[in-house]
Amino acid sequence: MAKKLTPREKDYSQWYNEIVQGADLAESSGVRGCMVIKPYGYAIWERMQSELDKMFKQTGHMNAYFPLFIPKSYLSKEAAHVEGFAKECAVVTHYRLKNSEDGKSIEVDPKAKLEEELIVRPTSETIIWDTYRKWIQSYRDLPLLINQWANVVRWEMRTRLFLRTAEFLWQEGHTAHATKREAIEETEKMIGVYAKFAENFMAMPVVKGLKSANERFAGAEETYCIEALMQDGKSLQAGTSHFLGQNFAKAFDVKFANQEGKQEFVWATSWGVSTRLMGALIMTHSDDYGLVLPPKLAPFQVVIVPIYKADEELSKVSDFAIKIKESLELRGISVKYDDRNNHKPGWKFAEYELKGVPVRLAIGARDIENSTVEIARRDTLEKQTCKVEGIDQRIENILKEIQHNLFEKALLFREENTYVADSKEQFKELINDGGFVYAHWDGTSETEELIKRETKATIRCIPLAIEKEKGVCLFSEKDSEQRVLFAKAY
Amino acid sequence: MAKKLTPREKDYSQWYNEIVQGADLAESSGVRGCMVIKPYGYAIWERMQSELDKMFKQTGHMNAYFPLFIPKSYLSKEAAHVEGFAKECAVVTHYRLKNSEDGKSIEVDPKAKLEEELIVRPTSETIIWDTYRKWIQSYRDLPLLINQWANVVRWEMRTRLFLRTAEFLWQEGHTAHATKREAIEETEKMIGVYAKFAENFMAMPVVKGLKSANERFAGAEETYCIEALMQDGKSLQAGTSHFLGQNFAKAFDVKFANQEGKQEFVWATSWGVSTRLMGALIMTHSDDYGLVLPPKLAPFQVVIVPIYKADEELSKVSDFAIKIKESLELRGISVKYDDRNNHKPGWKFAEYELKGVPVRLAIGARDIENSTVEIARRDTLEKQTCKVEGIDQRIENILKEIQHNLFEKALLFREENTYVADSKEQFKELINDGGFVYAHWDGTSETEELIKRETKATIRCIPLAIEKEKGVCLFSEKDSEQRVLFAKAY
Repeated sequence: MAKKLTPREKDYSQWYNEIVQGADLAESSGVRGCMVIKPYGYAIWERMQSELDKMFKQTGHMNAYFPLFIPKSYLSKEAAHVEGFAKECAVVTHYRLKNSEDGKSIEVDPKAKLEEELIVRPTSETIIWDTYRKWIQSYRDLPLLINQWANVVRWEMRTRLFLRTAEFLWQEGHTAHATKREAIEETEKMIGVYAKFAENFMAMPVVKGLKSANERFAGAEETYCIEALMQDGKSLQAGTSHFLGQNFAKAFDVKFANQEGKQEFVWATSWGVSTRLMGALIMTHSDDYGLVLPPKLAPFQVVIVPIYKADEELSKVSDFAIKIKESLELRGISVKYDDRNNHKPGWKFAEYELKGVPVRLAIGARDIENSTVEIARRDTLEKQTCKVEGIDQRIENILKEIQHNLFEKALLFREENTYVADSKEQFKELINDGGFVYAHWDGTSETEELIKRETKATIRCIPLAIEKEKGVCLFSEKDSEQRVLFAKAY
Repeated sequence: MAKKLTPREKDYSQWYNEIVQGADLAESSGVRGCMVIKPYGYAIWERMQSELDKMFKQTGHMNAYFPLFIPKSYLSKEAAHVEGFAKECAVVTHYRLKNSEDGKSIEVDPKAKLEEELIVRPTSETIIWDTYRKWIQSYRDLPLLINQWANVVRWEMRTRLFLRTAEFLWQEGHTAHATKREAIEETEKMIGVYAKFAENFMAMPVVKGLKSANERFAGAEETYCIEALMQDGKSLQAGTSHFLGQNFAKAFDVKFANQEGKQEFVWATSWGVSTRLMGALIMTHSDDYGLVLPPKLAPFQVVIVPIYKADEELSKVSDFAIKIKESLELRGISVKYDDRNNHKPGWKFAEYELKGVPVRLAIGARDIENSTVEIARRDTLEKQTCKVEGIDQRIENILKEIQHNLFEKALLFREENTYVADSKEQFKELINDGGFVYAHWDGTSETEELIKRETKATIRCIPLAIEKEKGVCLFSEKDSEQRVLFAKAY
C-alpha cells in the first residue's frame, strides 16, 4: 500500500494495471485471457448493472436467459455475422473426460465427441432469433423487447483487464419490431439510454454517433455508438446499439402476419455494454494516487477512519463515529466504518485513496472535544475541518458536488483535447499527440483504411449532433459531406 | 389458453411440462439439454436472486466473478472431485473456426487446437481455490466470504426444464476459514439461510439434514441439504452446503500463517442453489388450473381486468382501475392492469390463473356504480365482491394470507405424507406409494445401495432435528443409531 503508483505521465498503461490491481478490482486468472473480478470491482459492476437494469425496465424491456452454447450451424446462417466472429470462437467438441489407460491422468474421452460442435456464445443474435421464430406469429406479438445479462467469450490474443478479455460480462438487448421505423427508433432510444447512463452515473461525457461501414457490427445495417476520450488521448467505445434490418429474420425465417394478414419479415435491433465500462470508468477519472469513483457508483461513498491512541480512546471515538454513520445512512449515503486495529490511520488513508472512496472522514479525540470532523474529498484531495452539526446535509451536498465536478472535469479535458484538422499534415500531427480530431472524409472504406495505415487513427463515429458542412477529404481530396470524429482507440 | 391442463392425477410429469410451457416460464432450445428461460419465468428467478442476494450480504458475503473455463489439470487436482464431475464435462478444445476448403461451410480450424483443454465449469471450487492461494497469506485475510452468481454446465443425458438441464443458473458461495469449527459453523449457517428462504419466500417447508456418504458432494467431507416433498410424493433436493475440510486447500496449496506465525492449511465451505428452485416452486403449490405463486415471489401480485362493452365504458373503468392500482402501489404491491382489447375477460382470467397471479381484480360498469370490486384469490379460487373503500389494506392482508396459507397447505401435505416404517415390507409399500419415510438404517453405503436397488428410494438426509433413537436397520438387521429420511427423489 505504501508503494506509489507509476505516474500516468511516465507509463500510462502501467499506471492502469497498477490501479486495477492495487484497488482490488480484478486480476488475471490461470486461464489465458480470462479475468477474476474481485469483490470491490464486482461491487462497482453491480451498481452499474442495477442502474442500467432499471433504465431498461423503464423503457419497457424484460430480462430473459438464452443458452450459453450456439450450434455451429446457427452461427453460419448470417454470412456477415459468422465472418465477423469465426476467428475468435471457443469451440466445445466433447462432453466427457475419462481416466487415461495408465490411470495416471485424465483425458478427453474420444467416444464422447459431439455430432455438431457448439460455440461458446460470442454474442447471442443467432440463438435468440432461432427462438424468436417460435415466439412471433402476428403483429400482436410485437414489439418483443428483451434483454439478457450474461457472460460471452471472444478469443482475443492480446488481452487487458476489463478492456479486452476472452470472457467478459455484459448485457445484450435483442428486440423485434413490425416496422423499420420502429426498429430504428429503438436503436436510437437505446444509444440514448447508454449516453445518459455514461454521463449521469459514470460522470463520463460521450459523443453519440454512427459507425462507418468498416467499424459496424457483423450483421448490422447501422451501428450507433458512444465514444469517450480517455486521459491518454485515446478513444474508448463504451456502448453500441445496432439496427439489424431484416438480416437475422431472413437467416432464421422469422415472419409475422401484419394487420392485413400478410406475411412480413421482422425488423431487429441489438445493443450492449460490458465490463469494459469498468476500464472506461477507471481511465476517465483516476489520478496518480489511484482510483477516483463517482459517488453514484461507489460501493461505499464515505469511509470513516478513527484516530486514537489507547483502546479506551477508540471506544469513545467509535460512539461518536457510529452516530455520524447512522445520520448519513438515514440520507441513503453508504458508509464504511474502518476500526481495524492492525493498520495505522495513514495506511488506511492511502488505501481508501487508492480505492477511490469519494469522501473520507477522520475523527480523533480532539474532534470529539470540539464537535468537529475532518472531511477529505477524493476528487480534489482537499481537506477541511467542519462542525459535526449538519454533517449529514453537508456530506450529501459534497457527494453531489463530486459527481458534478467529475463530469465537468472530464468534459473540460475532452474539450481541451478536441481539435479540427484542415490539412493532412495537421491531421497527422494532431492524431499523433492524441485526442479527438474532427476532419473531412470522403465516406469510402478505402480512404478510412488508408488513414488507419498511415496514422493508426480510425473513424470513431459520424457524430449525430454535428452540423453538415461540405468540404474536401484530407486524404483523397474527394468531396466530403461532413466532418467525422477520428482518434486512436482502445 | 382455452386448452385445459392434463390433471396431476392423470400424468404428473405431463402436467409439469404443460405448466412450464403454458405459464411462459421456459422452453427447450435448439441446443441439446439447454433451456431458454422466458421473461415471465426469469422475472420469478430475479425475485429469488434478489432476496437471496440480500440474505448473503446480510451474513457478510460479497459477490465476485471467476472464469467460465477451468483448465483440465485444475479439475484433476482433487481426486474425489474430478471423479464426480468427469463424466459430464463440456470440453473446449479449439479456439477458432474457418471456411472449409470448398468455401461452402464453416469448420473447426485444426490449427487452433488448445494445448490444454478447458472445461466449462460444472462448479468452481478448483478455479476459485487456485485464486485463493494468491489472496490468503495470513489469518488476517480470513475469513474470506465470497459468492458468485453464474451459469454452469453439467452434461446430463436426460434433462427436464428447470429440474435437470445441461446448463443452469445458480449461485455458489465459496468461503475460507482459519479453523475447522468456523468452517462448519458457516456451512450450517448457510443451510439455515436456504431453509429460511425456502420457507419464508417460496412458502415451501423443508427438512434440513446431512447427506449420507453416497450422496455427498464430490470433494466434501460433509454435505448439508434441504429436502422438500413434491405433490407426487417425490423429494427434491433444494439446496446444499458443503464442509470441504482442507481438501481443496491441500490440492491447491492454500496455507495461511496463524496468530503464532505457523503455516496451516485453510478450511473451506461451498454452498449453492440453482434454477432448480423454479421446479420446486412450481411443484409445491400449483394445481390443475396452472401455476400458483407465493406473493413474495410473484412478478406481479395483483392483476386488474376491466369488464366492458363499448370503448367509452372502458375509459370509465380504466379511470377507476388506475386509481385502485395506484393505491395498491403506494403500499408496495405490484400490479398489472391488463386493458388489451384483443382478448375477452374470460380468456384473461384463464391466462392469469395459468400464470399463478396471486390476486385478480375484475371491474365492470356496475362496480363503478356500486363502488365495488370483485376479488379472486388464486390459492383458494374464491371470489368475493368488496367495497372499494379500504381495498388497499384488504389486498395487503389477502396477500399475507395467501403467503401464509400456501406454506400451511404445503406443510399439511408433507405431514400427511410422512410415514414411519418399522418393517421391510411396510417400508417397501410406503415408498412405493410415495412420500417421506423415516426408517432405521445401519449407516453403511452397502445397505443404502441395496435399498436403492430394491426400492428406488435413497436417503434424502439424516435430519438435524431428529432425536437419536436406537433401533435395528430394516434391511441389514444391524444396529442403527437413529432413523433417517428416505424417499424417491428428483
